[in-house]
Amino acid sequence: MKLYHIGKVVKDLEEAKKYYKDTFGFQSIGEPVEDNIQKVWVLKMNIGHGEILTLELLQPMNEQSPVYKFLQKTGGGLHHLSYLVEDIRRAIADFKEKGALILGEVAPSIAYGSKPSVWLYTGSKELIELIEEV
Amino acid sequence: MKLYHIGKVVKDLEEAKKYYKDTFGFQSIGEPVEDNIQKVWVLKMNIGHGEILTLELLQPMNEQSPVYKFLQKTGGGLHHLSYLVEDIRRAIADFKEKGALILGEVAPSIAYGSKPSVWLYTGSKELIELIEEV
Repeated sequence: MKLYHIGKVVKDLEEAKKYYKDTFGFQSIGEPVEDNIQKVWVLKMNIGHGEILTLELLQPMNEQSPVYKFLQKTGGGLHHLSYLVEDIRRAIADFKEKGALILGEVAPSIAYGSKPSVWLYTGSKELIELIEEV
Repeated sequence: MKLYHIGKVVKDLEEAKKYYKDTFGFQSIGEPVEDNIQKVWVLKMNIGHGEILTLELLQPMNEQSPVYKFLQKTGGGLHHLSYLVEDIRRAIADFKEKGALILGEVAPSIAYGSKPSVWLYTGSKELIELIEEV
């Protein structure tokens, strides 16, 4: 298991992209991706580690997006950490055994080549995303 | 400039270490370091990228610690991102030009070989730490 990306919720993807480019000198990786499952637009930023580990900017598409409430409540910011796992079914079983609450079903992670992914709250009430390395 | 660590404030370093070991299989890097400047105990965790990019666990030593209020308010969680820069004086000037508020003076980062470091709020109200790659 290893850290794959840092998810940050933002109000406006283009504005956030400009901020990271102008202030940090970071470049975006590809174009924004529309994720109709999570109802978010996703843009990956290169934060000095290439595609091995990225900053993932998430802008909710509408009020149905799981991150919409977070944006409303906080104005945006660090939201979750995403980890790569070798076997997502096994990882889910392991996390469950440690008291995690699995949020929904395994679903394709649109911005990451539709790799199987799942959201969960760990036993320590930490929101994380697991993505299977396929 | 590149991401160096993800700072997470925790109530108890040993408990957090156990959580990451038992639940994620992550190992700590070295022993907890006492940082008397920031008034925190610091423990680095290997999150699959060695020492290039770590999870930094921070436990406030007392109420004078800059992260004490954050812990009280939130119960702990993701706190800041830290970036490596080549020239900290130049980076500070650049961030200032982009509207950042520099918090205090450049000081040795105890847990990172006393490399020069500084805290700042970016123009987008994001708390970050810069550490000079020496």
